[in-house]
Amino acid sequence: MKKIAGGVTAAKGFSAAHTAAGIKYQDREDMALIYSSAPCQTAGTFTSNVVKAAPVKWDRKLVEESDYTQAVVVNAGIANACTGEEGMEYCRRTAECAGEELDIPTDAVLVASTGVIGMQLPMNRICDGIRSMAPRLSGELAAGNGAAKAIMTTDTHEKEAAVTFEVDGVEVTVGGMCKGSGMIHPNMCTMLSFVTTDLAIEKNLLQEALRAVVEDTYNMISVDGDTSTNDTCLLMANGLAGNRKIAEKGTSYDAFVEALMEVNRTLARMMAGDGEGATALFEVKVIGARSKEEAKILSKSVITSSLTKAAIFGHDANWGRILCALGYAGVDFDPEKVDLWFESKNGKIQIIENGVALDYSEEEATRILTSDAVTAICDMKQGNASATAWGCDLTYDYVKINADYRS
Amino acid sequence: MKKIAGGVTAAKGFSAAHTAAGIKYQDREDMALIYSSAPCQTAGTFTSNVVKAAPVKWDRKLVEESDYTQAVVVNAGIANACTGEEGMEYCRRTAECAGEELDIPTDAVLVASTGVIGMQLPMNRICDGIRSMAPRLSGELAAGNGAAKAIMTTDTHEKEAAVTFEVDGVEVTVGGMCKGSGMIHPNMCTMLSFVTTDLAIEKNLLQEALRAVVEDTYNMISVDGDTSTNDTCLLMANGLAGNRKIAEKGTSYDAFVEALMEVNRTLARMMAGDGEGATALFEVKVIGARSKEEAKILSKSVITSSLTKAAIFGHDANWGRILCALGYAGVDFDPEKVDLWFESKNGKIQIIENGVALDYSEEEATRILTSDAVTAICDMKQGNASATAWGCDLTYDYVKINADYRS
Repeated sequence: MKKIAGGVTAAKGFSAAHTAAGIKYQDREDMALIYSSAPCQTAGTFTSNVVKAAPVKWDRKLVEESDYTQAVVVNAGIANACTGEEGMEYCRRTAECAGEELDIPTDAVLVASTGVIGMQLPMNRICDGIRSMAPRLSGELAAGNGAAKAIMTTDTHEKEAAVTFEVDGVEVTVGGMCKGSGMIHPNMCTMLSFVTTDLAIEKNLLQEALRAVVEDTYNMISVDGDTSTNDTCLLMANGLAGNRKIAEKGTSYDAFVEALMEVNRTLARMMAGDGEGATALFEVKVIGARSKEEAKILSKSVITSSLTKAAIFGHDANWGRILCALGYAGVDFDPEKVDLWFESKNGKIQIIENGVALDYSEEEATRILTSDAVTAICDMKQGNASATAWGCDLTYDYVKINADYRS
Repeated sequence: MKKIAGGVTAAKGFSAAHTAAGIKYQDREDMALIYSSAPCQTAGTFTSNVVKAAPVKWDRKLVEESDYTQAVVVNAGIANACTGEEGMEYCRRTAECAGEELDIPTDAVLVASTGVIGMQLPMNRICDGIRSMAPRLSGELAAGNGAAKAIMTTDTHEKEAAVTFEVDGVEVTVGGMCKGSGMIHPNMCTMLSFVTTDLAIEKNLLQEALRAVVEDTYNMISVDGDTSTNDTCLLMANGLAGNRKIAEKGTSYDAFVEALMEVNRTLARMMAGDGEGATALFEVKVIGARSKEEAKILSKSVITSSLTKAAIFGHDANWGRILCALGYAGVDFDPEKVDLWFESKNGKIQIIENGVALDYSEEEATRILTSDAVTAICDMKQGNASATAWGCDLTYDYVKINADYRS
């Protein structure tokens, strides 16, 4: 497997475009279009929130029932959530409009929205946007990059990743982009993520691979504990790499899962590190747990603790809050066995051993915690299972962004 | 039932004292002593965190095994949590010291601590503090008030409540005090709460009453989602009111539960409204739920949503975030049936009906949300059950307080 530059247009046959449609923002690009020259097998994972945005309902139906998909229309600014029947109708009209422009069936067009909940989309602008983008579709990496920028809301930078790997001597590419900065606590998959590949693979295996990878990537990040109404992860495979179609598990399937994991882990970490107002990515590795499930619960409890997140913002080695967050996670363990380290590019320091503080240097700990990516390693000494979760610090800017988001 | 002034010294036979012992703070009162002239039946509820502070372990043993208790020693500044064997030894020595001064058995002395996790207590100062307080015990309301002030950490004001009611023509008093501002997400009972009564009642009924009341009061508040290592609620009954001892459920027991509910609800609301950095109490009433349990889960999900809390700080009627938080609570409902109102001393306004926004005035909504106590009412239209949860807004000051709490 090799990391390469690019995002959704990295794989063969995928092109993208973007435009400033004036959906809600007045001064920036806010729509993107992804298109595949060949029909795609499609997998998707969606929010577990009872309140599901209209595009989530639309896409889930297409992923389950359509023979293939070939395009995705995305807008930023308005989420099309809590919009009732009208919101569903807008999904249909968006897909219809793109289908006409691209000469593909309505049920081959996926749609995705992100932004304010409860507002209706300005449909004429959506359709104008599609008509503006369709003739400008391009397979260049720059086109993928433009799309990644156009789907941002409070994100501070675009998020792309791509890799290549080999299947039976044929080079296959997996590339993706995502956005997400607030209301990030995926329980299925995060805000919006679009991954494309030229692999040829059976649909059921595509879905199985995505589901497995999402569990260890998007479902292990949290910015604020709020599981969005719009969480969507779409994976489109158009088969243009030319490999013999993967129809069962084995070496080729494993190579694909590994590549998919790499792309999605990279995107998920980027999303956590670019959490609303964040100054640092906060990674928590739990090791020595009794099971992977327990390791996941423990690591997620620490990255979601407001007190711990505020301490990370303050570069404060406040290990008591980490032990406390492990303690209320709902997993049984012996607090008097736990070891804890902090690590960053600035070094590594052990803070507690067997549940009690070592005589460590606060100055050295603060130096290590003063970084844009900080890791806490918790050894539970109960077994051999481990898991990693990704979050970010809690800052003044998180409050600022969310106290006046709508105004 | 009648509300009266006072706190832990309101009931007959209870006295209190406080002192500046220099445990960690240098310039304020930081220790309190509560004493009952007669032996007390004692009930307690404690944190469900796996990591339990030493005083929690000490008190739980006493509540379960001691014939009676007669005093509580409390310190602020250091939590005596994650302190190993040494921390347990300090509880024993604190109780021994108070036992000698007050001429009561060591196992009649409860202890409680709040503050930084992981530091050891300066034992000589604790004992000096006890010796200074014991001769100054007083049953005056002012003594109870002084104790309520001395146990504060980041609290901005003391929290006391008291009521009287009648049992068989005899006047009975229930009074209490509590502290708690951060790391507040009780799962059993909150930070530190001390309730005293002169009621005569069997111990098993006292415990049952406390357990029931805690479920609807302290366990329904949250400041930051962090369940502390020290959560403790103690209830002492010395029987000096002179009523015929309550030995079974019935009218008298019910009257006591009602009084206990009033005192604890008042204290719990005060704690939520004085959450770290808070500018407003945020109350969420869920009505029309299928069961009380589901109503509790839904209301707690809303008060713990960081995005909703930030919107309350911004006086922003961001109802999408409330629907979203209801949606990920883990309870099934039809989003297209939900009604939502905001209410405060400034008025009441309906925002959504059947899951979709009404054409309400944003200006009017902001006026109503600009208050130090804001209520959201969510009608699920599924049944007749309801529940109320109490939280607070998320502010710059919460981040400020917790980014440099230890420094």
